[in-house]
Amino acid sequence: MEITFLGTGAGLPSKSRNVSAIALHLLQEENQIWLFDCGEATQHQILHTSIKPRKINKIFITHLHGDHIFGLPGLLSSRSFQGGDDAVTIYGPQGLRDYIVTALRISKSHLNYPITIKEIKDGTVIKEDNYTIYVKELDHGIPSFGYRIVEKDSPGELLVDKLQAKGIPAGPLYGKIKSNEYINTKDYGILYRKDFLGPDKPGKIITIMGDTRYQESFTSFVERSDVLIYEATFNAEQEDLAFQYFHSTTKQAATLAKEGNVKQLIMTHISSRYQLADYEDLLKEAREVFRDTELANDFYHHQIR
Amino acid sequence: MEITFLGTGAGLPSKSRNVSAIALHLLQEENQIWLFDCGEATQHQILHTSIKPRKINKIFITHLHGDHIFGLPGLLSSRSFQGGDDAVTIYGPQGLRDYIVTALRISKSHLNYPITIKEIKDGTVIKEDNYTIYVKELDHGIPSFGYRIVEKDSPGELLVDKLQAKGIPAGPLYGKIKSNEYINTKDYGILYRKDFLGPDKPGKIITIMGDTRYQESFTSFVERSDVLIYEATFNAEQEDLAFQYFHSTTKQAATLAKEGNVKQLIMTHISSRYQLADYEDLLKEAREVFRDTELANDFYHHQIR
Repeated sequence: MEITFLGTGAGLPSKSRNVSAIALHLLQEENQIWLFDCGEATQHQILHTSIKPRKINKIFITHLHGDHIFGLPGLLSSRSFQGGDDAVTIYGPQGLRDYIVTALRISKSHLNYPITIKEIKDGTVIKEDNYTIYVKELDHGIPSFGYRIVEKDSPGELLVDKLQAKGIPAGPLYGKIKSNEYINTKDYGILYRKDFLGPDKPGKIITIMGDTRYQESFTSFVERSDVLIYEATFNAEQEDLAFQYFHSTTKQAATLAKEGNVKQLIMTHISSRYQLADYEDLLKEAREVFRDTELANDFYHHQIR
Repeated sequence: MEITFLGTGAGLPSKSRNVSAIALHLLQEENQIWLFDCGEATQHQILHTSIKPRKINKIFITHLHGDHIFGLPGLLSSRSFQGGDDAVTIYGPQGLRDYIVTALRISKSHLNYPITIKEIKDGTVIKEDNYTIYVKELDHGIPSFGYRIVEKDSPGELLVDKLQAKGIPAGPLYGKIKSNEYINTKDYGILYRKDFLGPDKPGKIITIMGDTRYQESFTSFVERSDVLIYEATFNAEQEDLAFQYFHSTTKQAATLAKEGNVKQLIMTHISSRYQLADYEDLLKEAREVFRDTELANDFYHHQIR
C-alpha cells in the first residue's frame, strides 16, 4: 500500500500546490489504484507520476466543491483515450451523478468502459472482497464525508516450531498447509491450518477525511488508523477563521490524531496563504501535539508498512 | 492587440501541450481580455502568464468537446476568489448553459459577479461598440464554430499639410479638430473634421476557427484576416485520417490562409503524435503553400501590428 498526494492545496490552484486529489495504490494487493477526490488538472498531475489512469478503478469523492471534482470529467475522458477498458465505480455525495452525467453528455464524451456512480450518505458501508469502507458525514457547510478503509485481516505466519515438533520437514507441504483449511496427508494424517498458524495479521486502516471543521466526535471514526489524512487549511492561531470557513487547523488535526491513537497523521489541503517558509512552523505546531505528523506537498509519496 | 496561446494540444493534455485556450488581449483598446475556449487547467496555465483572470470579460467557446470546455467552471470560480467583480459574457453552442449552470450549481460555486451565457448558431452576429463578431458553423461532427472578430475602422491621420495651407498652426486646436465632427473657431470659421482627415484606418480582423474538417467554402469567412488561427491536428500526409476524425492538416490550414488572402496564419491544436523534432516539418509543409505561417506552442505570444 502506497499513497501519492496529487494535489494538496485549498480552494484554488497555485504554482506550488494543485487542488485536491490523493491516489491510494493497491497494486500489489488488487492491481488497482483508488483515487480520493479529483480537482481540476488531476490528470495533468498524473502525467508527472508513474500512475496509469487505466489502473484507477475506484474514485471516492469527499464533497462536491469545485476544487475536489472539476478534474473528474477530463480524467474519465482521457482514461478512455489511454486504453482504459475496465469498469470504474465512483462514490460521492448526492448530486455527483447529475454533475458527471451532464458533463459527459454535453461534451459528447463516449467512454470505452462502463462507469457506475454510487451516491453515499452518512453510515454507508461499501463492502469489497478484501476491504470494507465506512463513510461518515463531517461538518463543512455542504455534505462532506470521510472514508475509513479497513483491509481484511490476513492469516498469520506458519508456526514452523509446531510443524517441526510434529516431524513435518520444511518443503512444499508448508505452503499447502497455509493455503488450505485442512489437507489430508499420507504421512501425517489430516492437518488443520488453524493448528499451525499464529494470530491473524490485522489489515491496514487508512482514513481519508474530506474538508471539515474539527469535531471531537470524529475520534472513534479515525481510531487506530495506520494513516489518517486530514485537512489543515489553517495554522493553530486561526481557529476562529477555520471555524468560520468550515475548516480545521494544524493543531486540531494533531489533536484528532492523538485522541484517535492513529499511527501516522498526514496533513493536507494547505491554504495558499502559507508559503515554503511557513511549512516548518505548521509542522511544528502539529508535532507538539502529535509527533508522527507529516505535511503533504504535491507528489509526496508515502509507503504504508 | 496581442494573442497568447494557453493550450495548443489536441484531445488530451500532454507534458508539452495543454488542451485548447487562446487569450486575445484588448487591454490597450478595451482594458479587457477575451478568451477563446477553455480546456481543463487553463487557469493553471494563466498562473504562468501576466494575465489577470478578472480582466477576462468575454469567453467564446468554439465547440463543446471536453478539451475545449472542462476548464470553464474552475476558471469562473477562481476568478471570483481573485477579486473579479465585472460581469462575464460567455458565448458558445447550445448546451453550454446546461453544462455551466449544472457544474456551478452542483459544486455550490457562488460567483461574485454576474455571468450571461449566450448560445450562438450559424450566422449569429455579436455587436460591440468597437467590434463586430461574426459566427460561422464549421464541419466537426458536433456543432463547431469559427469567430471572425472585426475591429471598427478608426479615423485617419490629420492632414497637416491641408491645415497649414489654411494657415492653421500646429497646437491644441489640431486635437480638437480630430476629436469633433466640427468646431467653430474665431480665427478660421467652422472647421469640418472630414476636410482634414486622411482615409479611415481599417480595424484589425482576427479569425479564430474551432476544430473542423477543411472546406473551401470557409474562404470568404476568413478573407483578409490580419491573423487566422486554424487547427492543424495532422500533417499533410494524413488527410484521410483528418477527414475521418473531422480535423484538418497543415497543408489544408495553409491552403485556406492562401485562398483567403490572410496576412498571418497561426496553426494550433497539434496532435500529441508529433514531437519537438516534427514541428519543423509541420511548419515547412504549411509554408510551402503559405509563407506567413507560424506553429503555436503553449505560451506562444503574438503581437498584431
